Amino acid sequence: MGRSSNARARLIEIAGQLFQRQGYHASGLNQILGESGAPKGSFYYHFPDGKEQLAEASVRAAGEAVERIIEKAFGRARSFGSGAERFGALLADWFEESGFAAGCPVTSVLLETTPQSAPLLAACRAVFDAWIGHVEVHASRLDEGARARELALGLIMAMEGAWLLARAQRSTAPFRLAARLRPA
Amino acid sequence: MGRSSNARARLIEIAGQLFQRQGYHASGLNQILGESGAPKGSFYYHFPDGKEQLAEASVRAAGEAVERIIEKAFGRARSFGSGAERFGALLADWFEESGFAAGCPVTSVLLETTPQSAPLLAACRAVFDAWIGHVEVHASRLDEGARARELALGLIMAMEGAWLLARAQRSTAPFRLAARLRPA
Repeated sequence: MGRSSNARARLIEIAGQLFQRQGYHASGLNQILGESGAPKGSFYYHFPDGKEQLAEASVRAAGEAVERIIEKAFGRARSFGSGAERFGALLADWFEESGFAAGCPVTSVLLETTPQSAPLLAACRAVFDAWIGHVEVHASRLDEGARARELALGLIMAMEGAWLLARAQRSTAPFRLAARLRPA
Repeated sequence: MGRSSNARARLIEIAGQLFQRQGYHASGLNQILGESGAPKGSFYYHFPDGKEQLAEASVRAAGEAVERIIEKAFGRARSFGSGAERFGALLADWFEESGFAAGCPVTSVLLETTPQSAPLLAACRAVFDAWIGHVEVHASRLDEGARARELALGLIMAMEGAWLLARAQRSTAPFRLAARLRPA
């Protein structure tokens, strides 16, 4: 990678971290530029449409990061339950490493920009759909096929809710309960 | 109620609606004043510490609104499952009436201000705890006592996650699945 694509990756990384900790609107372009060390010209070279375009890239990158966590959790799982438990533990570790401060990388952007921004709504929705789809593939392999979609949707939903409660309670316990929630 | 407390209630109501739709930071004081019709002097009379204090009042009011929904759902329920189902249906109606646009009244404030603002973190946490406590009381009455706390925590967690997915998918379906999630 040349310097140019490093600058792009760095901008996406810093923006993602700031959105997770303080939300989309509170993370101004000046702070993103300051913390990433990118000059304004470089920013507009990579993101000619501005902060909304950077947020779209950041949501997609966050989506891929969680997809890797899903693969790590379920890749060698022998049951849906053990995969779900590992998924919850990995999210709990990520949250704890942030000092109980970082929320889901997609949620903040979603709540502050939807439905006002069509591109960001589409990006957030695509990321949630991809997570559900990845979990569903593993659920199909590990459980009865007919329940796979509901198991996947239920697990992603529960983890998103757990991330909110974890932040309010400054605790990782919600992730462990979320891993055990199943459709009755 | 005199004019004065009407102005206070109106400020809290408008702030809550704006936070639900566009988040905390995007809802500036000028917009809140403009939409509520309150003069600046009246605002600072009721909320001398400014927007953060208004947000605290708005989080508490939203907490009470959802508590009333919990009571309506579980008050005459004959089983935990039927109460949970009714709770999901009432939240789905609320969301649908907002044109699929309004998120959980507490979540936006939480994600944009925690852990930076200690008073808002405390308010959000107190509201989540109160919801869980209310559901737990009904769960104790309707189910085995030992599971009541987990059932309550799981249901609130699932509904919070459902509200996010409902917003991304512009659908009420997630609330119905959330109502059926139980600890395995």
